[in-house]
Amino acid sequence: MTWANVAEGSGFGPANLPYGVFAPAGGAARVGVRIGDEVLDLAAALGDTVFARPTLNDFMARGRDFWRETRARIVELLTDATRADHTLLYPVGEVTLLLPIAVGDYVDFYASEAHATNLGRMFRPDSAALLPNWKHLPVGYHGRAGTIVVSGTPVTRPLGQRKAPTDAEPVFGPSVRLDIEAEVGFVVGTPGTRIGSDDFAEHVFGVCLVNDWSARDIQAWEYVPLGPFLGKSFATSISPWIVPLEALTEARVPTPPQEPRPLPYLRGAEPWGLDLTLTVHLNGHTVSHPPYAEMYWSPAQMLAHTTVNGATVRTGDFYASGTISGAAPDQRGSFIEMTWNGTEPLTLPDGTRRTFLQDGDTVTIDGWAPGPNGERISFGEVTGEIRPAPEF
Amino acid sequence: MTWANVAEGSGFGPANLPYGVFAPAGGAARVGVRIGDEVLDLAAALGDTVFARPTLNDFMARGRDFWRETRARIVELLTDATRADHTLLYPVGEVTLLLPIAVGDYVDFYASEAHATNLGRMFRPDSAALLPNWKHLPVGYHGRAGTIVVSGTPVTRPLGQRKAPTDAEPVFGPSVRLDIEAEVGFVVGTPGTRIGSDDFAEHVFGVCLVNDWSARDIQAWEYVPLGPFLGKSFATSISPWIVPLEALTEARVPTPPQEPRPLPYLRGAEPWGLDLTLTVHLNGHTVSHPPYAEMYWSPAQMLAHTTVNGATVRTGDFYASGTISGAAPDQRGSFIEMTWNGTEPLTLPDGTRRTFLQDGDTVTIDGWAPGPNGERISFGEVTGEIRPAPEF
Repeated sequence: MTWANVAEGSGFGPANLPYGVFAPAGGAARVGVRIGDEVLDLAAALGDTVFARPTLNDFMARGRDFWRETRARIVELLTDATRADHTLLYPVGEVTLLLPIAVGDYVDFYASEAHATNLGRMFRPDSAALLPNWKHLPVGYHGRAGTIVVSGTPVTRPLGQRKAPTDAEPVFGPSVRLDIEAEVGFVVGTPGTRIGSDDFAEHVFGVCLVNDWSARDIQAWEYVPLGPFLGKSFATSISPWIVPLEALTEARVPTPPQEPRPLPYLRGAEPWGLDLTLTVHLNGHTVSHPPYAEMYWSPAQMLAHTTVNGATVRTGDFYASGTISGAAPDQRGSFIEMTWNGTEPLTLPDGTRRTFLQDGDTVTIDGWAPGPNGERISFGEVTGEIRPAPEF
Repeated sequence: MTWANVAEGSGFGPANLPYGVFAPAGGAARVGVRIGDEVLDLAAALGDTVFARPTLNDFMARGRDFWRETRARIVELLTDATRADHTLLYPVGEVTLLLPIAVGDYVDFYASEAHATNLGRMFRPDSAALLPNWKHLPVGYHGRAGTIVVSGTPVTRPLGQRKAPTDAEPVFGPSVRLDIEAEVGFVVGTPGTRIGSDDFAEHVFGVCLVNDWSARDIQAWEYVPLGPFLGKSFATSISPWIVPLEALTEARVPTPPQEPRPLPYLRGAEPWGLDLTLTVHLNGHTVSHPPYAEMYWSPAQMLAHTTVNGATVRTGDFYASGTISGAAPDQRGSFIEMTWNGTEPLTLPDGTRRTFLQDGDTVTIDGWAPGPNGERISFGEVTGEIRPAPEF
């Protein structure tokens, strides 16, 4: 029990305690912890200036022992009625939530078998749906770190080149196939290299929701042979709250069976699948429930792969799972899959139809994991509204 | 004429004045300017604390007018004999040269027609050598910013998965096809988005040499469909001196003719090809002379493309040209091309033969551009020695 106000089923009880960065009206940015519908001012509560900073990076750089100690002190404070002090709390609706991390490198994976299979079936109908490397390594690539934005930031429709197979020449203009990718992201706290699959929790600070906005038409024309670039680089939205790994003990599950058996550097004794279910909402209507537990590759395997060649990770490096799609049609994490490459439009309860996103559309993704004693762990939400492309 | 000691043909005369970051023995890192074989301590010389920093970023963030003013003050100081003060100078051999920039995002292009054609001929002998998009846009992708290192940093042979087409399963171990990519890099000083091709010089601070080390076997197995990842992410070396654009007035040349005509956002009135010739040395033997002037896409077009979708660039963002290869066989910028995919080994003057790099090999790339009055502008060098892979 906490002296703070936490509504039944809030998802932000004392078992969660995600970290973010907020600015009260007229105040400087600082680290906060969400409890119920309020934000605990951590610098004020704990008297440590490492929390009086505009990102979580300095806190994260202190390492896992300090993360544990900090969480224990927060729990102690919030559950000791004799220390109740509501001046430490700000209503979440009255503060500005900021991008919580200064991102170093950003890597995006492609770890959902259903997603990779769906795209393979759409674009290579006459070949095997999965490419030969897919079950041997977590396929991934570097994305643009500088355009990672916090939830709520509007997303401007990108301009770019596109060329349909039937076009003689590429044309330039606003993307006409603007999509989402519902993903989960992982924030590196402790630097390292050649990180074993069982050392994940020594290095990864926490987890958040990601929407990796994608312009499918720009991407299709540009991506051979060096991968996606402008089709993805205009915006990647993340949720403002970073859920610490310690809050996810009850959510840990094994990954689905991996066959063929991965190479030794990708094997770990620790299960790091996560029973985390996302929900995708388009203009307020629920359209999908992507299940993170079905992801083929775990985030521990992704980190082991990223660093096995000697590449270093730094505090603030960020990586995302890739689109989360389950086996069922109502579990797909992108509109290109939900509408089968635009051939099967969605009809929303208000009668509107969609293939790809229109200007003015708002996409919101939220997510939940199981916590202790039947409590739920909320990941909050990542949301963004599509703004029209600029004149050109 | 300068009161500093500049040998005839040094390439580091008062027409060059590249910026770097150095630490004198026992001293803190600070911004310096190379003149002859010495380094001018800029904070001491100009009395501005923006130069008493461990990277160029704060200086670069001040913008183009400040860059111009700073260069004019340095020229004034170094050419006024009444202000001669040798205590401001450190011998370059007695200081440590550091990574000069805190890199934001790193993008690597693929802008040499000869390079793209050579790879196409090797790997797709039955198709057109250039892919359909290549002449319509500067193909590029994001690389790993956190593993950009300064010249002189040893490069450890990466471990990773590889699978030859004839192998039944992938194997894990040290790369056996370790290569270089001789490139030129561009440092963004002034942030922006949708940067027109003629606004290049408002945003780009300077130019350096790049060796984008590449493990061809790791890359070949991993890169479909999302592009290179671990085959490149272990190390990218850059030269310590950033040559300001103002030093390159005489080096500017038009790009080769571009046909088909690029889309309007890629057109510019300003020529931003550069007559800059690199030389690649393997263990002290010259093996190649890659000519930057033959690059199909200019760095101004690369920046316009990167930002046309609304993506922002930040101070410290860095992008490289991709491997520079000329049409002639002795102008190739990678060993995979020089040895035609390993089928035509190089024989060095000392009788040793090479296809890909061996442990203990040192690769050094230097480069020169024409300056005023027949003077040459040196880019210094980027060098690295291959260290053995770790036990695994």
